[in-house]
Amino acid sequence: MERWTDPVERHDPAGVLDRLDGRPVHEIADALARMEPVDAGWVFRLLGKDRALDVFEELDPVDQQELLAGLRDDAVTALVEDMDPDDRARMLGEAPAKVANRVLAGLSAGERSMTAALLGYPDGSVGRVMTPETVAVPLHSSVTEALAVVRRKGAQAETVYTLPVTDAGRRVTGTVSLRDLVLARPDVVVADLVDDGAPRVRATDAAEDAARLMGEANLLDLLVVDSEDRLLGLLTIDDAVEILERADTEDAARQSGAAPWSGHYMYVRVTKLARTRAVWLAVLLLAAVLTVNVLQIFEDSLEQVTALALFIPLLVGTGGNAGAQSASAAVRAIAVGEVRLADLPAVVWRELRVGLLLGTLLGALGLLVAALLVGVQVAVVVAVTLVAICGWAATVGATMPLLARRVGIDPAVVSAPLVTTLVDATGLLIYFSVARLVLGI
Amino acid sequence: MERWTDPVERHDPAGVLDRLDGRPVHEIADALARMEPVDAGWVFRLLGKDRALDVFEELDPVDQQELLAGLRDDAVTALVEDMDPDDRARMLGEAPAKVANRVLAGLSAGERSMTAALLGYPDGSVGRVMTPETVAVPLHSSVTEALAVVRRKGAQAETVYTLPVTDAGRRVTGTVSLRDLVLARPDVVVADLVDDGAPRVRATDAAEDAARLMGEANLLDLLVVDSEDRLLGLLTIDDAVEILERADTEDAARQSGAAPWSGHYMYVRVTKLARTRAVWLAVLLLAAVLTVNVLQIFEDSLEQVTALALFIPLLVGTGGNAGAQSASAAVRAIAVGEVRLADLPAVVWRELRVGLLLGTLLGALGLLVAALLVGVQVAVVVAVTLVAICGWAATVGATMPLLARRVGIDPAVVSAPLVTTLVDATGLLIYFSVARLVLGI
Repeated sequence: MERWTDPVERHDPAGVLDRLDGRPVHEIADALARMEPVDAGWVFRLLGKDRALDVFEELDPVDQQELLAGLRDDAVTALVEDMDPDDRARMLGEAPAKVANRVLAGLSAGERSMTAALLGYPDGSVGRVMTPETVAVPLHSSVTEALAVVRRKGAQAETVYTLPVTDAGRRVTGTVSLRDLVLARPDVVVADLVDDGAPRVRATDAAEDAARLMGEANLLDLLVVDSEDRLLGLLTIDDAVEILERADTEDAARQSGAAPWSGHYMYVRVTKLARTRAVWLAVLLLAAVLTVNVLQIFEDSLEQVTALALFIPLLVGTGGNAGAQSASAAVRAIAVGEVRLADLPAVVWRELRVGLLLGTLLGALGLLVAALLVGVQVAVVVAVTLVAICGWAATVGATMPLLARRVGIDPAVVSAPLVTTLVDATGLLIYFSVARLVLGI
Repeated sequence: MERWTDPVERHDPAGVLDRLDGRPVHEIADALARMEPVDAGWVFRLLGKDRALDVFEELDPVDQQELLAGLRDDAVTALVEDMDPDDRARMLGEAPAKVANRVLAGLSAGERSMTAALLGYPDGSVGRVMTPETVAVPLHSSVTEALAVVRRKGAQAETVYTLPVTDAGRRVTGTVSLRDLVLARPDVVVADLVDDGAPRVRATDAAEDAARLMGEANLLDLLVVDSEDRLLGLLTIDDAVEILERADTEDAARQSGAAPWSGHYMYVRVTKLARTRAVWLAVLLLAAVLTVNVLQIFEDSLEQVTALALFIPLLVGTGGNAGAQSASAAVRAIAVGEVRLADLPAVVWRELRVGLLLGTLLGALGLLVAALLVGVQVAVVVAVTLVAICGWAATVGATMPLLARRVGIDPAVVSAPLVTTLVDATGLLIYFSVARLVLGI
């Protein structure tokens, strides 16, 4: 079967248009991200104006910039002018200053000031991703009046399902849902329908925390206010979902000791991919020199009983695995808000018990295996070490992310690989100390 | 400052009620999940009927069952009867059969049949989490007529923002949004507003895939149909967000070699936590016996040059880190749909280059460090090994999750720990082969 991108390779406009027809926007965006920039630009220009905008908004900022680079100035302005203000701010926020200024200069005054306002908030804040285009209704209007406001202003707004309710001083009282308005009798007043307990965040708050809050509280849109409770905008659920997915992708990268990157995996350059991993690998390599030092201390024991060397990878590997398990459980529990700093002692106590339990199980298994392979004496050393290493690794694994959180570092950064490397060195100390005791060397 | 749960410890109902007032539902649910079951039951009975239901729906199935165990039969029936059908099915799906039957028996006929229908779909399918309570509007009705349907049936429905549009044979034509209805002129017909390209899924499809599709296509609700395109229900975005969070939590657990569990981290039993990790740790320990075997093959080389043993943890650790990085990038890229099976050769080629690039960097670093610690000859062995191990580990790391996908295993399961253990053994083979070549032993 012919793939729908085949006509692109043949540069056959009619064929491409035929295939694009009726295909969902996110699939087209995904395909564009995988093409060479030249091909992507060519296909993009074939799309109709409205569809081009929808596809463009689906792209990652990096891919957006590659596309923009291939368009004429007036085409750029037309495209960017029609974007939602939050999507536009996100793209410009990641663009080089030169590109951002060129694009901003082309915008109409109103769009420029809205974008500049969003760009004034720090990177990763709610302000950068909220939409300022909301439909606010007055607290003391009737349902009929409120619905009239929705009809008048709704077409410009990003959402009309959550309507901020404001009092005389533009201060936010709460929200009313379009559902409640539509289902209520026309003469009811908004004040009787308003949810005044609706959560609200500041524009300077972290976008990820706001997105998690929306998930927990099952909100379609979240109020964004300034320090005096005046309305700034709404964070919509589609942006929140994107923020969460991005955050989880970043956490996944950090947990494996790589820096997060933006852009499509298949399209990001190999050197860039290597750069995201190089720093941590080098840091971990240098940290692992500690294991060389520890082994040097015990070099005479190694020379006496070479069999001890055979179990080094197995023991440090198991310690690393046990540490990674508890680190990743802790990182996730912190991310979804199940564990807080105050829980540290409780977490240590839990993980110590989990670790010792697992260590006992693995110790028994290790005793058996090692006895068969090299004899009882070394097997006893291996078994005792497994119990101690598992208890220690599980405790360290869960503690490090919490301590990182306390000093303001992303917990994901200090998880699996760093924990593993630390546990490696201390595990070897445990191993050879046990060996000296048991074997009397 | 007194915490709001302090009155619970004093068993002071007035104090608890005072603190609960105005507190968001998800915070109450979180606090209940952290309390002892007895305390949680006591607080729960203090909540008003509506609030109790909202809080109950926020809880995880495990916590829901603990709470139910402490309530009288009629209280259980009243509570469960008022739940949304999809939440109810989710809870009953995870409950022991005995509990599920007792609860089902207490429901009214209509609620029981709706729940039983949802329970008929496989675990993890869209059918289990969709809501059957939708407001469908006929294709040939006017906007006024459609809005009248919304007003008549909206109160019972879980969502009124996405309205499935059906033709005469109850076949789904597409969706119309409440926004479009409210903003349109009253005499326009629904057929002119319908989005007939709205994505749709089958009730038997995987819930996680459906939820990701909603995120990509920015949908508030997703159509669920049967094999003849007749309406079965809608998947709502709040359920989709929960599914994605659960899936990412499971992936995080699996990537560290632990089975996912349900329930709150601080409240799940230590033995249960240990059970989720034990199997993989044991499997990995047995797999690590391979490293012992490899070292036994080279035991004579080790006896001749004990210095070789010093670098074993550093080398296997670095290989493991490089493998984990690429495995976790691949797992994530597969999860978010950036990489498919057909990309395997391209992925291998990318990761091989990334690995060799990183290996060259680390090799230079390793050469320096090892030369300072033990001399040039062993340092050359270490450096060459680092280049080879990094290239090999990155390639294996990215390949395994894709191969797992091809044979139908969750890619997250074969990521970091399994990759690490495999790379450990092969890395040692590389190390000692290089050593024999370079040192001539």
